[in-house]
Amino acid sequence: MTQKSAFTWPVRVYYEDTDVGGVVYYANYLRYLERARTEWLRSFGIEQDRLLESERLMFVVTRASIDYRSPARFNDELTVSVEVTGNMRTSLEFHQSVHREDADGDRRLICEGQVRVACVSADSLRPRRLPASVMEALA
Amino acid sequence: MTQKSAFTWPVRVYYEDTDVGGVVYYANYLRYLERARTEWLRSFGIEQDRLLESERLMFVVTRASIDYRSPARFNDELTVSVEVTGNMRTSLEFHQSVHREDADGDRRLICEGQVRVACVSADSLRPRRLPASVMEALA
Amino acid sequence: MTQKSAFTWPVRVYYEDTDVGGVVYYANYLRYLERARTEWLRSFGIEQDRLLESERLMFVVTRASIDYRSPARFNDELTVSVEVTGNMRTSLEFHQSVHREDADGDRRLICEGQVRVACVSADSLRPRRLPASVMEALA
Amino acid sequence: MTQKSAFTWPVRVYYEDTDVGGVVYYANYLRYLERARTEWLRSFGIEQDRLLESERLMFVVTRASIDYRSPARFNDELTVSVEVTGNMRTSLEFHQSVHREDADGDRRLICEGQVRVACVSADSLRPRRLPASVMEALA
Repeated sequence: MTQKSAFTWPVRVYYEDTDVGGVVYYANYLRYLERARTEWLRSFGIEQDRLLESERLMFVVTRASIDYRSPARFNDELTVSVEVTGNMRTSLEFHQSVHREDADGDRRLICEGQVRVACVSADSLRPRRLPASVMEALA
Repeated sequence: MTQKSAFTWPVRVYYEDTDVGGVVYYANYLRYLERARTEWLRSFGIEQDRLLESERLMFVVTRASIDYRSPARFNDELTVSVEVTGNMRTSLEFHQSVHREDADGDRRLICEGQVRVACVSADSLRPRRLPASVMEALA
Repeated sequence: MTQKSAFTWPVRVYYEDTDVGGVVYYANYLRYLERARTEWLRSFGIEQDRLLESERLMFVVTRASIDYRSPARFNDELTVSVEVTGNMRTSLEFHQSVHREDADGDRRLICEGQVRVACVSADSLRPRRLPASVMEALA
Repeated sequence: MTQKSAFTWPVRVYYEDTDVGGVVYYANYLRYLERARTEWLRSFGIEQDRLLESERLMFVVTRASIDYRSPARFNDELTVSVEVTGNMRTSLEFHQSVHREDADGDRRLICEGQVRVACVSADSLRPRRLPASVMEALA
């Protein structure tokens, strides 16, 4: 269950996101999840382009697991959630979900999953400590 | 471990697949995995467009779990494997991996994961029995 | 020059949009242009999913021409414009541009182009008259 | 008209390439065109990753113009052509087309267009002379 406290970000489904099956292409949900994580960082004032320039740090996904529960379609307005469920010295674990608020007031779960993100050196791609700004945001 | 008997399909990394981090964007591996599953079906003479037309059946991914082990880069030539690890009446479970043969002869694991694919009615999106052609291919 | 009267829509550049060159991948600007056209239609109350259901009409791009002037990068906040420069019985011609407002107050042109969109039957893909709702929006 | 001498490259249409309209999403043809240009370069022994490493050169598209003539669909096998129609000191002009060989032996034009590609410094993004290897390939 997504808690009330989870960060959420709206995503509109455009033509580019759909496939011939009439639904959102399964790989594209990973894009939605990343957009929401990026905006979650930004909500704490953390801009990844500056982090890269000033500290040569970037985030890479090391594991993603996603359950597809119900299809989203062209023109749907979705809500993507971000919740930190674990943090180690060099990585973060997220639970994320995608919901659609249906016309009848129902909140439909489209998909949900776990994503592990590692902080790495942009030069060596080796693990690096999470930056202080991220640790503060989590505290 | 991928067995010798696994079906494999080559994939070249183009500009479109990469991101500013200099590596293949994490969602795009799911595209590679699907290309290989499509070609695996084709290797048994199963064409999904005809399956849709003649039987109104299509395949949808209901679960995907992927571990990213090593980054692939622009211009890499990758090999994607397809191995059926389980089959129920209305769905298939795959283990898939992406490897790169390095210049020094090393075979590097890029990522691997499990994908569950359900056979559904194209009209209702409800589960349907796997078509006989697929069952025969698996036998 | 984009006129004051042009409809505009904001687009944020995410990781998914970039390539190994460190800039937005050239094909992805066509996605941005379409998002803005979709939102321009929506601003008149025209929802393409309903148009498809109720009148079996959809829009397809028949010609696109784009000049890339300056690269956009990860995390940039862009503005996409939509301006109708011509309309025939069954198609619309748009001029569209993508700009970035730079920190120094400069408005940088990223790319601009012409896009022709035809109204077609979803079943036959043959040309159909623009729906009345679109003609009214243009009047 | 594509000449006999044009370089061609096969492209299969996968689920990832299609949209809810049942056809290849219009932006994705630009991906196909780039794959073919990359393979055209490779046919002369020019690998862009090495060009980047050894000479800090890369190619960027500065203009693309494309006419969509007939839709391609899921599972279609397409042929993408590459023909150089002009070359300046720092850029190349291509005519490219996408065709499908239909079952009845007909060769159907899917789309065609012009693409201008500039050679730039990977560091400054400023124009640079085309590398000698490319000039030789064109001679």
